[in-house]
Order: sequence, then structure tokens, then C-alpha cells
Amino acid sequence: MRALKWHGTRQVALADDVPVPRIEDPGDAVVRVVRSAICGTDLHPYRGEIAGFTPGTVTGHEFTGVVEAVGPAVRGLRTGERVVASDIIACGHCRSCRSGRHYQCDRVGLFGYDTVVGTRAYAGGHAEYVRVPFADVVLFPIPDDVDDERALFIGDVLATGYACAVGAGVRPGDTVAVVGCGPVGLLALEAAWTLGAARILAVDVLPSRLERAAERGAHPVPGGPHTAREIAGLTDGRGADAVLEAVGTDAALLTALDVVRPRGAVCAVGAHASEAMPMPTRLAFAKEVTLRFAVGDPISDGEPLMNLVRGGRIDPTVVVTHRMPLSEAPEAFRLFDSGAAGKVVLIP
Amino acid sequence: MRALKWHGTRQVALADDVPVPRIEDPGDAVVRVVRSAICGTDLHPYRGEIAGFTPGTVTGHEFTGVVEAVGPAVRGLRTGERVVASDIIACGHCRSCRSGRHYQCDRVGLFGYDTVVGTRAYAGGHAEYVRVPFADVVLFPIPDDVDDERALFIGDVLATGYACAVGAGVRPGDTVAVVGCGPVGLLALEAAWTLGAARILAVDVLPSRLERAAERGAHPVPGGPHTAREIAGLTDGRGADAVLEAVGTDAALLTALDVVRPRGAVCAVGAHASEAMPMPTRLAFAKEVTLRFAVGDPISDGEPLMNLVRGGRIDPTVVVTHRMPLSEAPEAFRLFDSGAAGKVVLIP
Amino acid sequence: MRALKWHGTRQVALADDVPVPRIEDPGDAVVRVVRSAICGTDLHPYRGEIAGFTPGTVTGHEFTGVVEAVGPAVRGLRTGERVVASDIIACGHCRSCRSGRHYQCDRVGLFGYDTVVGTRAYAGGHAEYVRVPFADVVLFPIPDDVDDERALFIGDVLATGYACAVGAGVRPGDTVAVVGCGPVGLLALEAAWTLGAARILAVDVLPSRLERAAERGAHPVPGGPHTAREIAGLTDGRGADAVLEAVGTDAALLTALDVVRPRGAVCAVGAHASEAMPMPTRLAFAKEVTLRFAVGDPISDGEPLMNLVRGGRIDPTVVVTHRMPLSEAPEAFRLFDSGAAGKVVLIP
Amino acid sequence: MRALKWHGTRQVALADDVPVPRIEDPGDAVVRVVRSAICGTDLHPYRGEIAGFTPGTVTGHEFTGVVEAVGPAVRGLRTGERVVASDIIACGHCRSCRSGRHYQCDRVGLFGYDTVVGTRAYAGGHAEYVRVPFADVVLFPIPDDVDDERALFIGDVLATGYACAVGAGVRPGDTVAVVGCGPVGLLALEAAWTLGAARILAVDVLPSRLERAAERGAHPVPGGPHTAREIAGLTDGRGADAVLEAVGTDAALLTALDVVRPRGAVCAVGAHASEAMPMPTRLAFAKEVTLRFAVGDPISDGEPLMNLVRGGRIDPTVVVTHRMPLSEAPEAFRLFDSGAAGKVVLIP
Repeated sequence: MRALKWHGTRQVALADDVPVPRIEDPGDAVVRVVRSAICGTDLHPYRGEIAGFTPGTVTGHEFTGVVEAVGPAVRGLRTGERVVASDIIACGHCRSCRSGRHYQCDRVGLFGYDTVVGTRAYAGGHAEYVRVPFADVVLFPIPDDVDDERALFIGDVLATGYACAVGAGVRPGDTVAVVGCGPVGLLALEAAWTLGAARILAVDVLPSRLERAAERGAHPVPGGPHTAREIAGLTDGRGADAVLEAVGTDAALLTALDVVRPRGAVCAVGAHASEAMPMPTRLAFAKEVTLRFAVGDPISDGEPLMNLVRGGRIDPTVVVTHRMPLSEAPEAFRLFDSGAAGKVVLIP
Repeated sequence: MRALKWHGTRQVALADDVPVPRIEDPGDAVVRVVRSAICGTDLHPYRGEIAGFTPGTVTGHEFTGVVEAVGPAVRGLRTGERVVASDIIACGHCRSCRSGRHYQCDRVGLFGYDTVVGTRAYAGGHAEYVRVPFADVVLFPIPDDVDDERALFIGDVLATGYACAVGAGVRPGDTVAVVGCGPVGLLALEAAWTLGAARILAVDVLPSRLERAAERGAHPVPGGPHTAREIAGLTDGRGADAVLEAVGTDAALLTALDVVRPRGAVCAVGAHASEAMPMPTRLAFAKEVTLRFAVGDPISDGEPLMNLVRGGRIDPTVVVTHRMPLSEAPEAFRLFDSGAAGKVVLIP
Repeated sequence: MRALKWHGTRQVALADDVPVPRIEDPGDAVVRVVRSAICGTDLHPYRGEIAGFTPGTVTGHEFTGVVEAVGPAVRGLRTGERVVASDIIACGHCRSCRSGRHYQCDRVGLFGYDTVVGTRAYAGGHAEYVRVPFADVVLFPIPDDVDDERALFIGDVLATGYACAVGAGVRPGDTVAVVGCGPVGLLALEAAWTLGAARILAVDVLPSRLERAAERGAHPVPGGPHTAREIAGLTDGRGADAVLEAVGTDAALLTALDVVRPRGAVCAVGAHASEAMPMPTRLAFAKEVTLRFAVGDPISDGEPLMNLVRGGRIDPTVVVTHRMPLSEAPEAFRLFDSGAAGKVVLIP
Repeated sequence: MRALKWHGTRQVALADDVPVPRIEDPGDAVVRVVRSAICGTDLHPYRGEIAGFTPGTVTGHEFTGVVEAVGPAVRGLRTGERVVASDIIACGHCRSCRSGRHYQCDRVGLFGYDTVVGTRAYAGGHAEYVRVPFADVVLFPIPDDVDDERALFIGDVLATGYACAVGAGVRPGDTVAVVGCGPVGLLALEAAWTLGAARILAVDVLPSRLERAAERGAHPVPGGPHTAREIAGLTDGRGADAVLEAVGTDAALLTALDVVRPRGAVCAVGAHASEAMPMPTRLAFAKEVTLRFAVGDPISDGEPLMNLVRGGRIDPTVVVTHRMPLSEAPEAFRLFDSGAAGKVVLIP
């Protein structure tokens, strides 16, 4: 079959001689991919930021498809069923999974991401077929009246945006600030509307992203030295009730802590990687701030998210800018890396 | 001044010799009324259903206006300020008020409702001026960019609908059933969208009400012997996650208990008055149902509701069908009582 | 093997020729029973209250034991492991189970209870061996430092009492009323202490039960015509913040609704079976009461409960009055039915 | 009257010519002090750590007493009533107060602390009499069956410990770590028991503090390089479910972040004052940690805390090591500063 492989910094190439995966464990399924996407997380290996990433890895952790085969221990899935995969692989049975903390599963993994998460590598979804472990946990059926593209992002970027809004405790009537309006931030924004936000202030340094956020009903606030002052001005000096930080840098998180109101909450879903962010504890204590770090959990949140998509409350395709055949995946990576594209959907 | 007085069953008349109210207690304010409305609750005395209701009572508990005078103990209110009044009068200081349970205040009252609620009668808002006790608790400022009509219903019917949706624990992705689509039900429906409902099933016996609900995005389900079966069919046999009961009769509540899913919740905000509704505890136990009775609380919920109205998330004026001068209030009551009108806004 | 069989009203007898159960489905385990108990629920068939109960049913749904065999699809359980079983059998995988509502599982069952719950009968725990379906969901490991008798009640009566206290929303500082101080009520009382109750008022008509409750720190209130007045007197006229109803009759539930404070909550875990309890909706609305029906869920709550037992915070053996060999189970049933015994532990 | 005044670093002295305070505002009360205490917060000015602290300030923000006089706008307080004061002064009426965030009140202040908190200085409780602004908000009645010493700490250190346990989301069955076992930590520990902790691990560098914690049921863990490893060993490698940080230093907070389990929560109630604590965001993100900063709020939590004290669930006097006359307050400060004393109660 055809599949995209990572070979080194900014080197990805389509191979057409990859063996079609098979059931290896009784809990496996094999899925024929119908749609996949490139995620911001994929840029870390693409840009060579992850030391030791294994050359030849088949990339991609956002995909939908059709169940081609199921192992004997898989419950409640049939061949022919349309499904979306959780980016996170989890066993569904350990103590963490039973408590709904799938990213903390004893056997956690991430499709197409080598062993960066967990200890075992799983081939990804930028391919014609994927082997899916713990299939009855990891796969989620797609109702007939939801098309693949609308279901696709439940597996990662929508779940991440939702976790961000939930994690910051957005409540009806809140003024919410979204720091970073890329795909995750834009869907965090959509999730915040769903949770009852009365007003959303969208912060980014890129005018094109602010425009997109404004189209989704947010008030744009340019990122920069005046961000905090502008947000103060828009909130009678108080700050935002909840801040959704969707970047993952020290600077973004410090902005978030700066603009949150006293007793407000910040939720960070960007992939933070500092050993020593200069945390202003004096300010955080004076404001009695809550700071939560969260990872999207499609396994826990797949059902409400599918309902919201199906009911037309959230349209996750607003983040799509390009649709390309899988064969053009290397170009798609290039566009996404350069900032010229939002989400790119790949069609095998 | 002019004010509407209740004289007996279906007898209300405008008087023009009512003394303008004055500050009586240090915590009072006097408000010049700008808009008022007739509430379903007003129909109970109108229809003669409340024994001992005092003739001459000035009716009305939904009103906005301008602060004309404030007593010396009132904090944070200025004359000239635009305000909406909570229908519930509460002291803001007793043990119940401190815990946010204003309807359970030791000194609770209801404008224009004699001593049906609490032990002291307060003249109502179907008048040119109203005396407002505990004014810094009972009155809520209206921002400049919110007009009086949009603010008006925060004082009762919107707060009631919101309490209903919150009380039933509506969560993102839920399928919500609304039983009774009069003004309260319609605003409960709006509140349910705000809390993240993915789908709303609207139940009523009147086609005109179902049409209104459908215009607000709900799926109409005729009330009657097939209601439960139809809702089962629409929910894969499960029932609704949350049921908002906005009627106040045994029949409506029994329907609600019938159509709620296992482990679901029903919230009743209709003014229930049974001594012995035939409660099916076998069913309720088998389904592990939660049943909550709630009264709207504009004092607690005024701020988020004003934010939602101001942000355009909820437009409470969707329930308005008539706008009439105060002088035509008797005709307005007649229309509302007959079912020919939804909410009627009165203009002094 | 030996097992207790139900043959008709007040007819249970030990058989010694019952075949030892075997793995039938890949998800099964077989458990050698070490301790079992008689539950109040067992009295319904014993007293002939359940029409159509199948003669020959092996009774009992509270048991601990040692895993003797596991099917090939069972995850994370080893032979030789000490376990306690959930009384509820649930698949762990359907929509309800994934949402933590195991009593609403599509394939729910109850050990030793014929098809009263669910559609499939499972032999019970008053036996030397039990076949356990969905074993990795239904069985819970017992730490080395917890003995079988302390673990036993996690499988039903402790989980039920805990669900009652949690369902009524007991919070730190609350005054809690427990209506019915049998084993479930007594463990609901223990759970209420764990959740921070400041004071517990224990209501029962039996002086012996009130004594037990008093030994556990509660203030005894005799059940009867003066109960509500006495509780009002003990709470400055307000009533109890939370009421735990552990009886299951109309009278008990009406008492609970009577003694709960405004905006308080009642949780009923007794097996209610009325088609038409005379529900005072006028009172419930005026007090804005929450009424929740709940069933204990050892699958969801097993972990915190085991931690609380292990840490010495709850000693569930306070409800045990008799320990008898399995061979004397018929006498044990007789004692329990007569009210002469609290919980009876059976030793195979 | 006599009162203790701060004159400079480690210079406090009793003055006997301080004017007895009088009602200045209509919302004031004057309280005759019966018991007061020295708080860890008092050590900051004592040690000269607060630049610009005004010489002559009467110190102390923990006190109980008897109401001597009330202003005309004070609701619900009578002269002769026994009361405990909140350390935080708040108006009870602004937007923050209405939302229960009293430390964020527009007019917040702290007794005896100059203008370090808020913009207005209020004389403190190390005196014979104190003027109390917003008296009906700041003062809390003491029931007859609660003595002054047990009520005293509700006004600060118990409320702070409670906020810490609540802020970290302690739930029934949790393993809780307390970092820092001084008075605040010790009462955080008591609060954690009240919220249902199954096990508490107490961390401190002082053996005497670990002993005290052990006497209260905790498992002592010496603070130092092996703390995290020891806690991992005690929790099967997982870490603590909730961590209560009661020190206020970078080191303590870093230890807390180190020992919390994935998806666990840390609550910091120490007075943090860093501009740049080296925050390990990589770890925090990988573990999906929640970090909350909180200040105790006696105004919000006074009622449940009084109930818990009254019901014997919490005995806050476990932190008292010395009781001394007010005249020996300078010596009391010296002992407390040196670490030779826990809480010191002063008797006027």
C-alpha cells in the first residue's frame, strides 16, 4: 500500500511498497483510511525537533476510515463500519483509563509518533490502511448523517480545543480569551461558544488568524506588548474569566497569566516543553489563579463532540484550508510548515 | 400616578390616583418604570385561583426603569441609572441569601403578588413608579448597549428558563426535551442551547407553540399519548438526557419522568401545586432519575444572563408577541389569559 | 459443589450436587468464594414478593473470593488473585458503561437474582464457586492488607450507602438526616461522615437501630409522627441539608421530603416500587427540592471505597451481627428476615 | 486601651495609650477582643520583609470578641454577641463579593497589615478593641457551645487550610500530600481528612512538625532530596492525587509539582512572591497538572467551618502551643519567629 514516511528533517516521502497491516493482537482492528490530516504536532518531527525519531516512521494521527478487519477480542465493532480514530491509543482497562485519564494509560501511544508518547511505536494514518490496537476503545463509530471530514477532527484537534475550553472552566456568560488562533485555538473558540461564552477575545500575532477568529464571532486583539492593556480595557480592567492557551510557548502562557482575571483560570493545551518557564508566582497568588495543563481526550469526549457536530452546533471544518490527495502529502507538509495552510485534509 | 389594580377574578383596572411611592426604609429605591410585562404567574390571581388575594393590589413583577431616588443605606446605585428588577425580593444578608438561595430568604417577597410569597405585600410594576426594597440586592444595572426590552426578562422569565436548564444539568452534546413551550419553555430552550445542547425536542399540545420552538431550532413533538414513543424513537430508545418541565401540572411532570433517559434529570420550574401527584417511584428508581424543582433567581443569575443578552447569545424578546401602552393593560391581560398572546410588554 | 437454592417463599436449601461452574465466554472468570453475605434485596424473593422467580436459582450477590480460572479475553486478572465482585454485572463497553452508568448497561445483570434485573440469569454467590462474566469489569482486586470481610461490602451495601451520600450531595459542614438505619442506612451514615458531614440525625422506628447509629456518632431521632418536628427543632427550623433515604417505602420517602431544608436534596437508594406515591409537589416546589434515585455502583466507586476501607476511614463490618457457615444459610435467612440479625456473613 | 504596635524590624511593643476605636462609618462595629493570635503572615513585617510598612501599626488579623457597638447600617448583629472576625475585610456588595471572591473585593483590606492588601489601613486585633468595617460581612457569630479558642482560627488559618484542601479538589479515597506542616499545613491536613482523604503523606524538614502531623494520622515523609522518591514508593509510582502546598517558596512548590500524580492537582496557599519561579512546563504538560493558587476566605467558608468545629469534626486548637497574656506579645512574637512556638494565643 501507499504510505507517507518520515526520513529526516523536512524529509517526508510517499512509499508505495508498504505492507498492508494485519491483525496482530486479538484486540486489533485494521482500518482503510478515507480521510487524514496533518496536525501541528506532526511539525515537531518534520522540523527535526525530536531527537532520535526513527526514520521510516509512517506519520499521521488524525484519520477516519472503514473497518476492514477486527480481532476476536474486539467488542461492538463490525467490518464495514465507518469510524474515526482517537489520536491517543489507550487500553481502556488500566486504572488510569477506568478513571477517564486515557493520556495517562499504562500502555499509551500515539499513531505515527514513534515512541515519543509511550514505549511502543504505531504506524500512522497518512496511509491507505492502519492497524488500530485496543480497537473498541480507540475507534468511534460515525453516524450516517455525519460525513468523514466533519468527523475527522474529533480524533484530535477538536478534542484538544474542547479540552482547553472545559479545562479553563468556561461558564455561561463568561468573557473568554483565546491565546493563539491556529486550528487548535480556533476550535477552542468554537468549544467556548458551545459552553456558553458571552464574548470571546482572540489573540494572535498573525492578522489572517485574527480574521478567521473574527469570522467566528470573536473580538480580535493583536498579540504584542499592548495585548494585556487592550484586554484590560475591554473588561473594565478585570481581565478574562477564562483563558485558552493554544500555543505552547513560555510567551503565550505568560500572556495568558497576565490577562486572566482574579480567580480566573488558564488552560494550556499547547505542547509545553520548558524546564524553567519564569512563572510569576507573586501575581498568580495575588490573583488566586488556576493554571491547568491538558491534553485532548477523544476517547472520553468523542460522544458529546460527535453529538455537537451532528447537531450542527460545531462545524470543525472551519479550520480546513486545503484538501489534497495523499500523493501530494509532501507538498501539504511544506505548506503547513510554512504557515501558508491551516489544516490540510489528505485523501488516499 | 397611574397603576393597574386587581379587583377580583378577571377584574383589573387602571387607576390614575395612586400615590407615587417614596423611600420608606433606608435600603429602598424608587424606580420610574420604563417597561413591564405580564407573567404567567399573574394569571393565577387574575383567574381567581388564589384565595384571599387582596383587592386593590398593584400587579406586576417584571419591570425595568430608571432609579429616581435611593435610600441612605443603598450601596452602589445612583439616581438616573437604568435598572432591571428581580421579581424576587430578598434581603441579601440572611443565611439563605449568603448561600445564594434568594427565594428562601427570611424576608422574601414578590412584587405585585400580595403575601402569596413571604409575609409582606409589595406594590408591583404595572405602574409608573415602584418602591424597591433592598434595592442594592434587587436591582441590577443595565449596560448602555442593552435596551430595556432585552433586559426586561432577566428579572423573571429568562431567569426561570435558565434555572430550568441549569437545574436539569444540561451538558454539551445533550439531547434535551422541553415540556411546555410557552414563554418559560421557550427561554428554557434558549438557555439549553447556551449550555451546549446538541439537539432539543420541544413538546407542546399547541401547534403555534411548536412552530415557535421549531423556529428556535428545536424538533417539534406533539404532546399527547404518543409523545413518549416518539421521543424514544428519536433517541434510539433511550430518552432525553435532560428534561425541562415548564408547565407545572401533574401531567406535564409525568410526561417528563416518562421521557427522561436512565440517569437523566428532570427540572420542573412550573408552579406545581399538587398535594399528591401519583409519582411512579418504581420507574424513577429503575431509571435512577434526578428530579429537581427550581425557581428562577435573577439575583444570582443576573450577571451571566445580562452578559449573554449583551453578547447576543440569547435574545429574550423572541417571546414577545404584543407591545401595548399601560393604559391598555386590561386588554393585554385578556389576550394573555386567552392564549392569544405570548409575552405582552407594557409601556407606561 | 455446595450452593444455596431458592425453591419458593421462605424456602431456601443447601444443595451439594451443584456442578462447579466453568468458563463459558472468553470474558469469564471462575471465583472460589471465601465470604458471602445476605442482602436486604435477597428478602424480596425470599418473601415471595417477586412473581415468576425461577425455583432452583442459586442466590447471593455479595461475595469475595479467589480467582480460580480466567477466560482468554480477560485483561489484568490472574488466577490466585483475591477479589470482590460487584453485585451488578456490566459489560464495561456499551455507551452506558463508558459513561459510568453500569446499572444501565445494555447487558446488565445481578448475581443470584434470576432475570429481575436484565434479561439473563446468573447463579449467585451463596456457593463455593461462581462464574463471573465480564470478569475484568466486575471483579476488583483486594489489597493484601485488607481482609475479606472488610472488602466484602464494597460489592453492594457499602457502594449503595456511598451512592446515597454522594447522590444527596453531602458537603463539608452539612447536617445530614439518614432515614432508615438498617445496614444500608448505617453505611450511608459512614459515607456521610467521610464526605464531611458535621452532624448526622438518624431516623428509625427500631430502638436497636437508633442505638447502632448513635454508636456511630449520629443523633438518634425516633421515627413517627414527631420526626419532622424534632428535626426542625434540631435545625433552627430549617431541616436537614441532605437526606439519605435507605428504606424504599412511600412513607420513608415522604418523611425525607418533609425534613429536607429548602434547596436541600434527598437521595433514595431503597428499592422503590410504587406506581403512584402521593408526591407533594406544592411543597417540593416551594422548597426547591432535589430528589434523586440511585443504585450503588461498585464498578465506578470500588477504587475510592477500597482506599477508604484500606485507610481505616470506613469500617464496613460495623453492620455485621452474625457469621455463620454456608451450611447454616437457611437459618441465616430466617434470622435476617425476622429482623433479629443485621448483616450475616456466610463462610463456605 | 492597650495594643501592640509595630515599630520596625523585630520591634513590637505594647502601648497603653491607644484610643479606643469608635464607629466611623454606618457599617462599622466595634469589638472587644477576647482572643487573638499571631499568624505566619505577621512575620513578614516583623522580619522587616515589607518595605514601607508604617511604624505604629497595630498588628494582628486573627481575633474573636464581643460586639460592643454597631453602626446604623449594620444588619443582623447585636451588641453583646460573640463573634469571630474574618482576617480579610470585604464590602460584601461589589461584583467580586457577590461572586464569593472576597479577597478580590474592590475595597479589600487586611486587619493590622497597613496597606499591603488593598489601599486602606485598618488597626489590627492585638488590642483590647478593634473597629470592624462592613461588620455584617466581616464578623461571624459564635454559637454558645463553641469556645473562643476553637472559633478563633476560622478567621484565618483554618480557612486557609480548608481553601487549600478544597482548591486541590481532595475527594473521598484520595492519597493527599501536604507540603509544609506548620499551622496552615496542619489544618490543611485536618481539612483533607474532612473531605474524605484515605491517606495523607506529610512532608516537612522539621522532625517536630512531622511528629505533629503523624499524631494527626498522617504518614511522615522527611523533606529533602529523597521526598519524591519516597512518595513514589508509597503510591505505586503514581504520586499523590492532591498536593497541599502550605509553605510559599519556590522549592516547596517545585516539590509539590514533582510529587503530584498525572492529572492530579496542587493547591498553593503559601504567600508566593517570586517573579520567576523556574516552572517545569514540560513535566506539567506531560502530567496534565492543575495548579491553583488560593487565599483562605473566612467570609465564604465560615459557616461550614463553624459547623465542622461545632460538630467536633475539626479541632483547630491542635496548632496551639502557647497561650500568653497580650502584655507578653513581644515575647510571643520572638518565640513564634524563632520556630520555638506554633500558634500563640494572646489573651487581652
